[in-house]
Amino acid sequence: MKTVRLSIIGFGAVGQGVARSILSKQEYLHKQGIDLCVVGIADSGGCEVNKQGIDLKNAIARKKQTGTVAADSDGVLDLINGTDHDIVVEATPTSIKDGEPGLGNMLSAFESGKHVVTSNKGPLALRFSELKEAAEDNGVMFRYEATVGGAVPIFNLIHEALAGNTIVGIEGILNGTCNYILTRMAEERMPYELVLKEAQELGIAEADPTYDVEGIDSACKLVIIANSVFGDNATYHDVDVTGITKITPEALELANENNYLIKLICEATEGKLTVAPRLVPKRHPLAVGGTLNVASIQTDLAGRITISGKGAGSIETASSILSDIVFIARNS
Amino acid sequence: MKTVRLSIIGFGAVGQGVARSILSKQEYLHKQGIDLCVVGIADSGGCEVNKQGIDLKNAIARKKQTGTVAADSDGVLDLINGTDHDIVVEATPTSIKDGEPGLGNMLSAFESGKHVVTSNKGPLALRFSELKEAAEDNGVMFRYEATVGGAVPIFNLIHEALAGNTIVGIEGILNGTCNYILTRMAEERMPYELVLKEAQELGIAEADPTYDVEGIDSACKLVIIANSVFGDNATYHDVDVTGITKITPEALELANENNYLIKLICEATEGKLTVAPRLVPKRHPLAVGGTLNVASIQTDLAGRITISGKGAGSIETASSILSDIVFIARNS
Repeated sequence: MKTVRLSIIGFGAVGQGVARSILSKQEYLHKQGIDLCVVGIADSGGCEVNKQGIDLKNAIARKKQTGTVAADSDGVLDLINGTDHDIVVEATPTSIKDGEPGLGNMLSAFESGKHVVTSNKGPLALRFSELKEAAEDNGVMFRYEATVGGAVPIFNLIHEALAGNTIVGIEGILNGTCNYILTRMAEERMPYELVLKEAQELGIAEADPTYDVEGIDSACKLVIIANSVFGDNATYHDVDVTGITKITPEALELANENNYLIKLICEATEGKLTVAPRLVPKRHPLAVGGTLNVASIQTDLAGRITISGKGAGSIETASSILSDIVFIARNS
Repeated sequence: MKTVRLSIIGFGAVGQGVARSILSKQEYLHKQGIDLCVVGIADSGGCEVNKQGIDLKNAIARKKQTGTVAADSDGVLDLINGTDHDIVVEATPTSIKDGEPGLGNMLSAFESGKHVVTSNKGPLALRFSELKEAAEDNGVMFRYEATVGGAVPIFNLIHEALAGNTIVGIEGILNGTCNYILTRMAEERMPYELVLKEAQELGIAEADPTYDVEGIDSACKLVIIANSVFGDNATYHDVDVTGITKITPEALELANENNYLIKLICEATEGKLTVAPRLVPKRHPLAVGGTLNVASIQTDLAGRITISGKGAGSIETASSILSDIVFIARNS
């Protein structure tokens, strides 16, 4: 049995999803020879550290009751640097202004010789190369499957499953909120504002939906894909972005009459990054509905490979984090 | 640079596709620190062995001119056992009667301490557990991505990218010939016999189409999935199989009027294996057309993940073989 010691930095929906997944999959992972031991949890209120392993059930309950897991006066960086462990799971809220606090947390983790697994897009959309180099310089792994596509394992597919293929281009729908709004507008012939309100009531769109509907979230994800796949050094400012706020039910109806859908498509080829509404034939692999995410990868040998699944949700995101943790456990 | 020495056993469309892929990707693989060196090729006419590495261009040209690469009087098993190398790529024609010659080739490879990468379904549909145990007993790897779904990396997706997930069930369309026939019948309202003839003329269906249209090929692939994912010890005789020969244009038309398609669906849940024509909603992830293959994997954490792509073709199949070779190069 290989014991892998983790910290979980950020204990919101994703961090708690990781803790719940570890709890529910303990036996399954033991059968594969992996024992996951969480030695530290941090949230905005403080930290809990226990070198023998934190009682995760208790931590989740405490977070629910008191709003924090804080039991220690130590700061987050003390936990990352000062506590002996293998993997830092970075799941703090994302910022596309300066990438903090995720950026600092990840760099500290690398400098203290720890692998990083993250769901936090901001730092990767701003400073991808720097993070990648920091990991390489310190001889540790940097895994970020959960930053793009929720449960859909896009990076593993490209780097592992399609190893040997040269990636020619990638198209995808990477924002479930926009996909939901466009799907409902087309199916119910409802105007944008009404569907947005419905999505907000269902918790699919935020109170301030700008980040999603203006294509910023999609652009951040596209940048991470481009940097990871093509070795670009792009930031989200390099993406040509158009959102979905100007799309009318009439445009969707006209598309429908000609057997097309309108989708917010992210496209990366070497040197060009675009997020914009596009006509997609109804029978095209990208024509997935509801909140689904999809990525279609054009390769030299395998041709076009398309993968779709749930793009959000705490357990779905935890699934991607868990597969990254298992990858590190198997390969370290 | 890590040198990985291979033999290619079987030098038809797939074996030559592997050779062509290695030739075209040499520089790409060198950049990843991998040098692939083919030290032996076998076809039904004999073997060529060269410990310094075979000139693949020359071997392909010779095969085209003379019908064989044979330059040596040694048999295939002498090449597998007697020549020092790391990976046996087994790409001989498949037999679902006794699995030979693939079965014997793979077992010899394992016994002589060599990893096996294969596209050959027959041996796996008949004797999966025995092969898996032989690999484990000899401490070598057994990779078979190319046996199911052509270029679509189903096994890597399940075992690596979705690691940490428990697989609840798998549905898929795993035979491009049947999918092509049903797609054309629905779109053109043509009867089965006419579309089959068209498919035969296009080289999509064999002169004797039984293996495809009666669902036998699908059943073999489903068995390999079930054995690999659920640890079953099934053979293709355990699958409840119905083919597509009885499907009428009228049935497809009726389905179409209700927004359904008819597809030959393979389904594996723990303990039950079925191949049969099924109604699939047009918006369902499994509703892919033409010769495409698709697999939809139901998991406990990630929900449903669906992947589609080209299910056949020598370069597409070589893509899956190459990714297995790279996996072994990285992990051995």
